[in-house]
Amino acid sequence: MSGTSARLAGPVEIVGTGLIGTSIALACRRAGLEVLLTDRDPDHVRTATGLGAGRPRTDDDEPQLVVVAVPPDALGKAIRDALDTAGPETVVTDVGSVKAAPLDAVAGHPAVSRYVGSHPMAGTEHSGPLTANAELFDGRPWAVTPGPDATASAARLVEALVVLCGAVPVRLSPYEHDRAVARTSHVPHLMASLVAGTLAGAPADHLALSGTGVRDVTRVAGGDPRLYSQIIGGNAAAVAALLTEVRERLDLALEAIAGDDRAGLESLLAYGQAGTRAIPGKHGAAPQEMAAVRVALPDQPGGLARLFADAGASGVNIEDVRIDHDPGRPVGQVEIDVVADRAEELRVALESKGWVTHR
Amino acid sequence: MSGTSARLAGPVEIVGTGLIGTSIALACRRAGLEVLLTDRDPDHVRTATGLGAGRPRTDDDEPQLVVVAVPPDALGKAIRDALDTAGPETVVTDVGSVKAAPLDAVAGHPAVSRYVGSHPMAGTEHSGPLTANAELFDGRPWAVTPGPDATASAARLVEALVVLCGAVPVRLSPYEHDRAVARTSHVPHLMASLVAGTLAGAPADHLALSGTGVRDVTRVAGGDPRLYSQIIGGNAAAVAALLTEVRERLDLALEAIAGDDRAGLESLLAYGQAGTRAIPGKHGAAPQEMAAVRVALPDQPGGLARLFADAGASGVNIEDVRIDHDPGRPVGQVEIDVVADRAEELRVALESKGWVTHR
Repeated sequence: MSGTSARLAGPVEIVGTGLIGTSIALACRRAGLEVLLTDRDPDHVRTATGLGAGRPRTDDDEPQLVVVAVPPDALGKAIRDALDTAGPETVVTDVGSVKAAPLDAVAGHPAVSRYVGSHPMAGTEHSGPLTANAELFDGRPWAVTPGPDATASAARLVEALVVLCGAVPVRLSPYEHDRAVARTSHVPHLMASLVAGTLAGAPADHLALSGTGVRDVTRVAGGDPRLYSQIIGGNAAAVAALLTEVRERLDLALEAIAGDDRAGLESLLAYGQAGTRAIPGKHGAAPQEMAAVRVALPDQPGGLARLFADAGASGVNIEDVRIDHDPGRPVGQVEIDVVADRAEELRVALESKGWVTHR
Repeated sequence: MSGTSARLAGPVEIVGTGLIGTSIALACRRAGLEVLLTDRDPDHVRTATGLGAGRPRTDDDEPQLVVVAVPPDALGKAIRDALDTAGPETVVTDVGSVKAAPLDAVAGHPAVSRYVGSHPMAGTEHSGPLTANAELFDGRPWAVTPGPDATASAARLVEALVVLCGAVPVRLSPYEHDRAVARTSHVPHLMASLVAGTLAGAPADHLALSGTGVRDVTRVAGGDPRLYSQIIGGNAAAVAALLTEVRERLDLALEAIAGDDRAGLESLLAYGQAGTRAIPGKHGAAPQEMAAVRVALPDQPGGLARLFADAGASGVNIEDVRIDHDPGRPVGQVEIDVVADRAEELRVALESKGWVTHR
């Protein structure tokens, strides 16, 4: 890949030593690069330094690459500041969740050709340097989004950082990126939040009927409202455009329901079903045919580990696992996904160890 | 519980030997009851009989309880037919996903006092008798929804069936039930389907940025469109009322985004976050404080099983498991949830076995 041809020798400056910034710092240190740390909060720099993520930056330092990893609303100014103070050769990137807004923020800056935005598809529900780890980006997509004024060598250097972090570079224009994440992240988050909102203050005997479905749909809505209001607000145009389309289809659903138009309702649902099949499968491969083996699990310490030890002894590779957590369920159910033509083999192996299984 | 005082002695007739009907039949046989099988499709009856679910019903049989388990749009007629042909003491229930519509369908029937609707919160993505199992209902909530004309003894007999199947009876009026499932199942399904619809036909480089979030949000939208159009269409009033509320909040979200009203957007998201916390935790208990231990997993046969065997050896009980399936991720990540104050113990145990873990 082109990025690998640009030599990233360091030093790399990390501006903002939170989860993402410190994780990038640790990945750079893992590769032996010198890392300079900057944060508004000196405690964060001290913590990150203590984790072996690098050393505080001094005025004499001249980084080869600056990675700006600050909250969305602070991105534009932080990127401009980095371009102002950087050396004549220094390349600046950021890892913000939206890419058009920061590009607009640096429009007309004399060093705009040395700015290339990026966005790693990684993160956890945690934040702060203490939750950082060098493996956070292993194999993840990481969007690299050069603007029209960016030099090819600057883009290649950012792609070299992506590869160094173990991630997979995905080149997009800033505008395509923002349309993509509106679709794969921001609108899904908003819709999950709207569904979850219908549960707030709901009667307990309504919530008692909650199954795994509503849990899956609403899970992401548990994320930090302040952070996501900045992310979504920073991608207003793309989110509004897609959310308006969704609203039109929601109106169609309401019409179909009001008019008892089963065919119309079915076609809306079939369109959604087709959408679920468009998501790339594991490792980006075409979805492989899987089968679920269901196992009844007594809720006892070590039960799950015993089950997996027995499953492992069968020699059948486990592709995925789901554990049923319905309320009022004293006996759990575990679904083990395996390649379809190995499912019966796993079932027989588990039954022979005394597990109750079913299709 | 009152239901346990009503003696269910059988015979139990199952009308409709699909996944749910045959699973109830198997649970009744497990308890030693005589089970009579009826289905429009004689092959289904033969298959269910072959599975040991019971025997075909004859005209001389007089069941104590009839369980109607046919598709939503066929429910009303099937329940009326059961009441017409049943003996003077026979109680009739159904297991449909909506409860007001079938009650309306039997309104004015001379035997309406012996009809009590119900709805087990169970099922898989599969259908047909071959996918049935007696454990399907273990510990699940199972709504029992007597109408105004139902006798107390009829309701108790249906509750006795619920308990016999290993499920947990939840008493609701038919109208409360339909409002509850609109909230916990039907509207979440529609919203997931609308999100999934935005992925149908999306550019590949957009879909390449799909993470675990959009997969969770859209998973239920993979369900059978025909079945769900019947379920949702059969609960039109409750779904339309709630979906209209959701649409109003979606309009608020659009206004907040268009007006760059970060505070308004944040309060909408905070409301959703509160909703995710309203869902009952495992076994209906108040959510316990959990911590996730993240482990890097090489994608090799048996790797997951080795991991769980090592985790089991630590003696720390595993509460939940998530496996990261992001596209382009050669190295997987497994998140193991344990009670928060045992997390460090598990981490140390796994590191000692050579696993790479992080918070």
